[in-house]
Amino acid sequence: MAGSDDVVLLNFWASPFGARVKIALAEKGVVNYDYKEEKLADKSSLLLKMNPVHKKVPVLIHHGKPICESNIIVQYIDETWQNDDPPLLPSDPYLKAQARFWADFVDSKVRFSGIWRTKGEEQESAKKEFIDLLKVLEGQLGEKPYLIGESFGYADIAVIPLSCWFYALETVGKMNIGQECPKLIEWVERCMERESVSKSLPDPHKIYEYLLEKMKKLG
Amino acid sequence: MAGSDDVVLLNFWASPFGARVKIALAEKGVVNYDYKEEKLADKSSLLLKMNPVHKKVPVLIHHGKPICESNIIVQYIDETWQNDDPPLLPSDPYLKAQARFWADFVDSKVRFSGIWRTKGEEQESAKKEFIDLLKVLEGQLGEKPYLIGESFGYADIAVIPLSCWFYALETVGKMNIGQECPKLIEWVERCMERESVSKSLPDPHKIYEYLLEKMKKLG
Repeated sequence: MAGSDDVVLLNFWASPFGARVKIALAEKGVVNYDYKEEKLADKSSLLLKMNPVHKKVPVLIHHGKPICESNIIVQYIDETWQNDDPPLLPSDPYLKAQARFWADFVDSKVRFSGIWRTKGEEQESAKKEFIDLLKVLEGQLGEKPYLIGESFGYADIAVIPLSCWFYALETVGKMNIGQECPKLIEWVERCMERESVSKSLPDPHKIYEYLLEKMKKLG
Repeated sequence: MAGSDDVVLLNFWASPFGARVKIALAEKGVVNYDYKEEKLADKSSLLLKMNPVHKKVPVLIHHGKPICESNIIVQYIDETWQNDDPPLLPSDPYLKAQARFWADFVDSKVRFSGIWRTKGEEQESAKKEFIDLLKVLEGQLGEKPYLIGESFGYADIAVIPLSCWFYALETVGKMNIGQECPKLIEWVERCMERESVSKSLPDPHKIYEYLLEKMKKLG
């Protein structure tokens, strides 16, 4: 049964995409929702019915109607629930385009499975590629507190869930992200000061255990 | 030099992504812009400077500032230029999410290079996959005139440039898209009645010649 806001979230706990939706709901004060954990290997009939095209989490169901794809869901949340805080997307069209660009960048560019799926040279090159992409994000951050400017918003929500994979990737890949991207790590810490973020992201140690399980299955 | 609207479009004539931007500009009556044709094999320093992350067309430069990624550009155009027509994106958040979903679907799902890059069984399976995706789009269309409802908009703009590849794909792949997806072809014809669309899309015969050139290079 949906909570009193008539909102249901279909999610998988370790999904960085689902974490975006949790953060956005928390930012808007939408707390009375029904969270349904999905098993990726055995998806519920509700998930398959609500997202027949991609068959993926997260899905937000609002008044019985599904919204799919995390960045689209976050925009929907921003447009549907208004509160006293500034909207998650800036109102200026150019800044809005920038925020969308960086959210899209994560989905189209950032990959890190090579860090745990491969070894030797291949792993080294996956590590380098990942760090290079983080440096691009750090470049966008510059001296600003958040990715698009003075306030936490859409782009930050899209990127910050990556950070709960850092501990696992650093451990498995024997790398130090903070040494390579110190400003990005300061930004992570700044975001984590928000309850909407810290309470929505999975525990990095649990992510590490989850990754070890995945690696064990790979052999 | 930019046209009187201080708008520059960096594009490649056959790009279905660039065609989206041309349609959106035409819909908004932005006609005095400076069109710069790019060579994909020898990109201009302007393109590399304006889109250093992806190094891809299209790029819209407005008052000297770049906006990249076609769907993001179309949203920027919609938010920046208003006229008497309804906005390209519906105002209802749920319909807006649906429009974004179908625009995103094209970019994340629709692939057709297998139809001309491969032969035999592999080609047959690429053809089937492409037709299946078109049928998903046809399913979304249903009995509506446009993808999201009564008016031509953002989702239609994202999808319609695919259609100028149909002739080339049908010829090379010996297939008949109209037979498989008759309602989709009716929708293509409906969209083509709009000058914004018919004047923005490349000639299907030129696309076919372009594809033959590409196939010749492949050997």
